[in-house]
Amino acid sequence: MAADDTEVVDFLYEVGLLKRYKRIGWVVAGVPDVESIADHSHRTAITAAVIASLEGADPQRAAFLALFHDTQETRTTDIPYLGKRYLKAVAPAEVTEDQVRGLPAVLADTIRGAVREYEGHESTEAVCARDADKLECLMQAVEYRSQGSSHTQAWIDTSLAALKTAAAKRLAEEALRRGPLEWMHETRDEKPPL
Amino acid sequence: MAADDTEVVDFLYEVGLLKRYKRIGWVVAGVPDVESIADHSHRTAITAAVIASLEGADPQRAAFLALFHDTQETRTTDIPYLGKRYLKAVAPAEVTEDQVRGLPAVLADTIRGAVREYEGHESTEAVCARDADKLECLMQAVEYRSQGSSHTQAWIDTSLAALKTAAAKRLAEEALRRGPLEWMHETRDEKPPL
Amino acid sequence: MAADDTEVVDFLYEVGLLKRYKRIGWVVAGVPDVESIADHSHRTAITAAVIASLEGADPQRAAFLALFHDTQETRTTDIPYLGKRYLKAVAPAEVTEDQVRGLPAVLADTIRGAVREYEGHESTEAVCARDADKLECLMQAVEYRSQGSSHTQAWIDTSLAALKTAAAKRLAEEALRRGPLEWMHETRDEKPPL
Amino acid sequence: MAADDTEVVDFLYEVGLLKRYKRIGWVVAGVPDVESIADHSHRTAITAAVIASLEGADPQRAAFLALFHDTQETRTTDIPYLGKRYLKAVAPAEVTEDQVRGLPAVLADTIRGAVREYEGHESTEAVCARDADKLECLMQAVEYRSQGSSHTQAWIDTSLAALKTAAAKRLAEEALRRGPLEWMHETRDEKPPL
Amino acid sequence: MAADDTEVVDFLYEVGLLKRYKRIGWVVAGVPDVESIADHSHRTAITAAVIASLEGADPQRAAFLALFHDTQETRTTDIPYLGKRYLKAVAPAEVTEDQVRGLPAVLADTIRGAVREYEGHESTEAVCARDADKLECLMQAVEYRSQGSSHTQAWIDTSLAALKTAAAKRLAEEALRRGPLEWMHETRDEKPPL
Amino acid sequence: MAADDTEVVDFLYEVGLLKRYKRIGWVVAGVPDVESIADHSHRTAITAAVIASLEGADPQRAAFLALFHDTQETRTTDIPYLGKRYLKAVAPAEVTEDQVRGLPAVLADTIRGAVREYEGHESTEAVCARDADKLECLMQAVEYRSQGSSHTQAWIDTSLAALKTAAAKRLAEEALRRGPLEWMHETRDEKPPL
Repeated sequence: MAADDTEVVDFLYEVGLLKRYKRIGWVVAGVPDVESIADHSHRTAITAAVIASLEGADPQRAAFLALFHDTQETRTTDIPYLGKRYLKAVAPAEVTEDQVRGLPAVLADTIRGAVREYEGHESTEAVCARDADKLECLMQAVEYRSQGSSHTQAWIDTSLAALKTAAAKRLAEEALRRGPLEWMHETRDEKPPL
Repeated sequence: MAADDTEVVDFLYEVGLLKRYKRIGWVVAGVPDVESIADHSHRTAITAAVIASLEGADPQRAAFLALFHDTQETRTTDIPYLGKRYLKAVAPAEVTEDQVRGLPAVLADTIRGAVREYEGHESTEAVCARDADKLECLMQAVEYRSQGSSHTQAWIDTSLAALKTAAAKRLAEEALRRGPLEWMHETRDEKPPL
Repeated sequence: MAADDTEVVDFLYEVGLLKRYKRIGWVVAGVPDVESIADHSHRTAITAAVIASLEGADPQRAAFLALFHDTQETRTTDIPYLGKRYLKAVAPAEVTEDQVRGLPAVLADTIRGAVREYEGHESTEAVCARDADKLECLMQAVEYRSQGSSHTQAWIDTSLAALKTAAAKRLAEEALRRGPLEWMHETRDEKPPL
Repeated sequence: MAADDTEVVDFLYEVGLLKRYKRIGWVVAGVPDVESIADHSHRTAITAAVIASLEGADPQRAAFLALFHDTQETRTTDIPYLGKRYLKAVAPAEVTEDQVRGLPAVLADTIRGAVREYEGHESTEAVCARDADKLECLMQAVEYRSQGSSHTQAWIDTSLAALKTAAAKRLAEEALRRGPLEWMHETRDEKPPL
Repeated sequence: MAADDTEVVDFLYEVGLLKRYKRIGWVVAGVPDVESIADHSHRTAITAAVIASLEGADPQRAAFLALFHDTQETRTTDIPYLGKRYLKAVAPAEVTEDQVRGLPAVLADTIRGAVREYEGHESTEAVCARDADKLECLMQAVEYRSQGSSHTQAWIDTSLAALKTAAAKRLAEEALRRGPLEWMHETRDEKPPL
Repeated sequence: MAADDTEVVDFLYEVGLLKRYKRIGWVVAGVPDVESIADHSHRTAITAAVIASLEGADPQRAAFLALFHDTQETRTTDIPYLGKRYLKAVAPAEVTEDQVRGLPAVLADTIRGAVREYEGHESTEAVCARDADKLECLMQAVEYRSQGSSHTQAWIDTSLAALKTAAAKRLAEEALRRGPLEWMHETRDEKPPL
């Protein structure tokens, strides 16, 4: 059991690297204070639950898939678009295989299953989680644009073009139209929402 | 429908504040580059899945509860220990009530249900998610300590004392014994894990 | 005496937290590298001296009030506009009461007196210091706007509307018209000021 | 009057540079997230009030002197110890002379008077403010040391050796003995102070 | 020999300060996350090789001059435009003289020679390296402008006006016309360059 | 010619990415404020000149090789040790081939030649530049260790073991014995070096 505990603790320390690794696309775009992969993954998981709910799928499953969708990047980091021509990465599921080796079998299977389903592109929940990854990116691009970064349009266009579900497409249009935290400024002028 | 989409998008932009708000305890402790609430929430959700799995509970449910456990802090921020004597906060579930107002009913119920279960302290999954919140904090304290911050012991002690499940207690002891990313240094000297 | 010295030193270490706590409004606005509460308080104190001087009041007293005007935030942090609906704070003077407990009586009275006068909104110096708090915020908003942050208008509007003295109103208009550090760019083209 | 307002606003924008300039000694020492000159000046002003109070001098005057003591650094920046051999700076009062040129006469005289008194080293309040500058530095060094920076001893030694007043010497010894925010950790174990 | 090694190691540690010192002009301009002097020097050296190559001069020599062109700033830091009226610095070659004292003679002569040639403004390679210093600054200004900073025009104008070589002037015009990393966005829409 | 200028400018903007990319090993080690690849490359180039000088090789050539030794990382980023098992990168010289395509032939050949010589491991200057890469890393590890990061030993050991030249080995031992910027603290106690 002690050996298992060591493996589990090592796995959780490793997941902590996602707090320190930056989303590299924003670094390329010149954004000054870039979010971490964990930052992105957290809102992606909630966004996955939202999209799944609107699509009549299982919000909890979609969120769970999203939670692990970038966990391989503890070992590969986030490779910029430009780098994909020069770096050939093993499949994410293979990285996960190394990460869960030594974990208790039930836990290993749970993580392995989530990664495989996400990478499979097939279940509705996987499609919702993948759309969440893109919608989250689009919203972050809008936020960075409103903070001064003018090099975010490519991210908005690419994210928008990749969306599959009707709900995500509708939310993306609304996110672009609405802009970030508009309601907060409304409350400064009028009465608070309650 | 348009009105609903606006509310959904506003909710997701609001969740994005958790990327920018810092975990205030580490600021008080003098840690130089402090993680965000979203950073903490991401690893907490994965830790919740791990603890639930080891405790024979539902990993997906525990992760889902953990994902939302600090989402009220978009409105209240993270209050330091010291501040709790001077600030009386409404119950988290009431903040959530305001946050989900206007969301499609199914989605609102999903979020409301997760928050209430977490705040209820009763289901095994809630207990696992709450332990994950503490274990994650303990591990982060160990990591900041290894980066030079000497004021982290209080966080380790408080987190350790609050743990309820056998799995979390065992993992906490192992996390303290093992230290962060030890295996990575092992692989530098020996053969890689594969 | 030793006991007193401990209390004094603890008070000064506590004041140091204002260097680490960020002005939360700018975090909400998405500003990338946000000033500390101490940063704000320093220029506020100098601004208070300026406004008091222009209003025929005591610059030194106004600066002194401003110096302490946010010192309660070591314990309460800076609560965002949005959070005030969810957090009920004790009055600043009560926080100060706890902070000065144990300090030598003369010192405690000096600090207590400054906080009470500021919170009383009555003396001309208190009015000038309060205007300084708003004018400083407005100028910082203009600076962040020129650095790319487009979400600063609400802060400008709110600050402007709250000003009471003729001097502060005039300076606010000029600060908006002039923009930050314009004269420095002038000197690049022409001769230096001497 | 309009011309005057422009000068006043330019002066306040200029003072804002102290929020962005870092205390260079800590950069040399390798501290990771260095305080601004404004951060230092804010606690120095409060420390000056404290020392003056303990020495039976005027706390308000001492704080006022401290508030302006580094305002010349908007134009000269903070020069490291090492640089003083290679850079000959004009006297601070001369920089101030340029800064207040064009300000309304009463205001200009107020600032000029504070800088001259501080630079004169003679009045008790100037001595207290100068000791505050050193004591603040020593306390910051202790804080950075507890955050991992091992190169802070030279700053502690130099600051300690420069102190003139009995009160500042006593507080420095206590600050070294006590360490930062010890009482906060005490309150975690026991009952809160109230 | 041991004494020499100590001097060499001290010299290399000292050069490391350029990683921590910020380019002060950008701080004045309000850029949020400012490059280091080493950051600037690295691209300047490559730019010097580029300009020298286009001008038919020796790329390696020009790069070598550029590599050392700001190394005196370990001792003097980067003084803002505004500060030059208040700080009289010794000539860079004199600072270098102190820095290389104690180094093995051949090494000291190599560094001394590079600094003197750069400061001499005469050799074609010195002219190319000096133009590289300005062109690099102009390109960085364009990059910061595209990230939201509106106060960069003065740097563009000053840099452009200082250029001497035909190659640098042509590249500056093209850098202004082209903008940063445009080709990367082209590759997002079309086929990758290979 | 216009086409060429566009390619040259694109190349220099691309090199600027090295200012923004962090040295990933330090991120893994938990260092709070990590140097850029450009920061590392700048001191590496100077270190290469130093080692070459001590080894009787050409300092200018060694520095030139070092200047370009990580320029491929604009496209591949800095891959952590752990990631090399999961990412297969094309040879650096092939990345350079893409980077210099379209540059004027003389310039392209100059860069290509430097990269090939460095990657060839054969010329004395290449060996000195490669040792500089390792020695620079070791010195940075010592600096981060003195700033509190306890996870730097693996970098020191690996760098030390990889050194080839007698000069680099001797300097590494001295760098470890001496520690960073010791002489600066000596000058605080005694007379300045002049």
